[in-house]
Amino acid sequence: MNIKEAAGFLAGKDNILILTHSRPDGDTLCSAGALAYGLNKLGKRSFLLKNPEAAERYLKYTGKFFAPGDFEPECIVSVDVARETMITLGGEMYADRVELAIDHHASNSRYAENSCVEPGAASCGEMVYDIVCELGIPLDPELAALLYIAVTTDTGCFVYTNTSARTLEIASRLVAAGAPNGRLNKELFRTKKRGIVLLEGEIISNMKFSHNGEIAVATITQKLMADFGVVEAELEDIASLPGQIEGVKVGITIKEQPDGRSKISVRTVDGVNANEICAKFDGGGHPCAAGCTLNFPPETAADMIVEASGESL
Amino acid sequence: MNIKEAAGFLAGKDNILILTHSRPDGDTLCSAGALAYGLNKLGKRSFLLKNPEAAERYLKYTGKFFAPGDFEPECIVSVDVARETMITLGGEMYADRVELAIDHHASNSRYAENSCVEPGAASCGEMVYDIVCELGIPLDPELAALLYIAVTTDTGCFVYTNTSARTLEIASRLVAAGAPNGRLNKELFRTKKRGIVLLEGEIISNMKFSHNGEIAVATITQKLMADFGVVEAELEDIASLPGQIEGVKVGITIKEQPDGRSKISVRTVDGVNANEICAKFDGGGHPCAAGCTLNFPPETAADMIVEASGESL
Repeated sequence: MNIKEAAGFLAGKDNILILTHSRPDGDTLCSAGALAYGLNKLGKRSFLLKNPEAAERYLKYTGKFFAPGDFEPECIVSVDVARETMITLGGEMYADRVELAIDHHASNSRYAENSCVEPGAASCGEMVYDIVCELGIPLDPELAALLYIAVTTDTGCFVYTNTSARTLEIASRLVAAGAPNGRLNKELFRTKKRGIVLLEGEIISNMKFSHNGEIAVATITQKLMADFGVVEAELEDIASLPGQIEGVKVGITIKEQPDGRSKISVRTVDGVNANEICAKFDGGGHPCAAGCTLNFPPETAADMIVEASGESL
Repeated sequence: MNIKEAAGFLAGKDNILILTHSRPDGDTLCSAGALAYGLNKLGKRSFLLKNPEAAERYLKYTGKFFAPGDFEPECIVSVDVARETMITLGGEMYADRVELAIDHHASNSRYAENSCVEPGAASCGEMVYDIVCELGIPLDPELAALLYIAVTTDTGCFVYTNTSARTLEIASRLVAAGAPNGRLNKELFRTKKRGIVLLEGEIISNMKFSHNGEIAVATITQKLMADFGVVEAELEDIASLPGQIEGVKVGITIKEQPDGRSKISVRTVDGVNANEICAKFDGGGHPCAAGCTLNFPPETAADMIVEASGESL
């Protein structure tokens, strides 16, 4: 389905339950929230299935759209969910009932009856913006804010390479419609928990370099996280840290797991293939960002992944 | 003068020398470069006066527009220069000959014969974009890239509160015209010198908190800069660091000077007035960002500025 067809499909439905993905980000939650908000404006009943893993910073904007316990959905829609196994915890029973998947992952497995997939969109926020416009729903400040959060969280506030002219054009219209971009940017991109900032300082100070500074390794042990009162879920951004240092071609982040294993993120530039490096350890991902898990403590794991990275330089 | 009048003025001139401001940023250099490039496209001779303080990351895009030694200008234009005392080193002799100042600072002192000042513009890049369009100069990838750098450096890549719907709209058109936003963002916003990253780590680890965590102080000594091979000019971004920590209302950065004095930056949120704090020490600035210099070493200066900040909480 294209955007027009997806909008037409939604126009003919009511009592719509919207599914988000597990370990939810701003795009899945706020795109879904924007869609529910828009459908409500059309006089339809529409809710998000409660996502128990939603972080407080997104919950404050989307929690009110979570379905009440007695809601009986007639139509199931998913937003930003690439495979049925990625549906939010608690949504397993709906996996084979999804009538429409709205998604921007090229890898979408076409699990839904109808799929509206646009790999060129930087976020599902862009797609829901188009659907909302197609349905003739006016952009008010609340709707604009939801879509602004969706668009910015998936582009790092317009800094990632997925940001297109279209992304910026849509953002411009959202701000014009009243999305409080200055406040939202401060909240989402310029505010960090004290423990995280201090932990980052510690990690940076102890970063290890090799291969003429082309490989950098940051290690986060369980002890460090405990010392600074930080949990792993709060450290999503940290994987990009070593790769931001001038001259570094392979940025490696090692997170020690509670069971002593090492979860590894690899970020690469200049044609070095992260996917190839991680594949040596049964991991994988994209050419510039991949991951793997090693059954060794961080120090041993560091030696292994650095050696494998050196071969790919 | 408004944009239309400024464009008309430039259309009637030739042999135009463009001045930038001292301690130049991406906006003054690349807006000026974009203007010279555009005027050249119209068949005019136009150059930037060499700015000896230009950083390599902007020089690579604008150095080729610097005037040759034998250039005899007939018309002097300034871009992003709020006062004549802020004209680039080497441009003093032109201070009373500026025929047109293109600027977005509300504080522009009207030193030029004609002033085109738009305080609502987040960057001079937005104004030069409008002038270039008004003159009918087509946007090609090189011109678009220059303007994109100007627009993004003054908005922190669209994250600062000065970013407007118009900023994003212009950015969208620049990307559509071929500005390589992904590569430029990586270069300008996602790459840091190793010494700077390590110095930041050290500074963060040693940050001092007081007043229930509402005041944070980061101190950069001469010794630290020497240890990490970093000069003060490379540390412009660092003033925003303490203020990004959750709960901090006054973020203070102290840079020890070679003569032992303390240069202080204050960043505030939630209505705490940075200007008021710095005014107590003969400094000043804006309500959310101000500065002052204390004739004391960092430790003493820290006590003084923290006490003054505490009174403003």
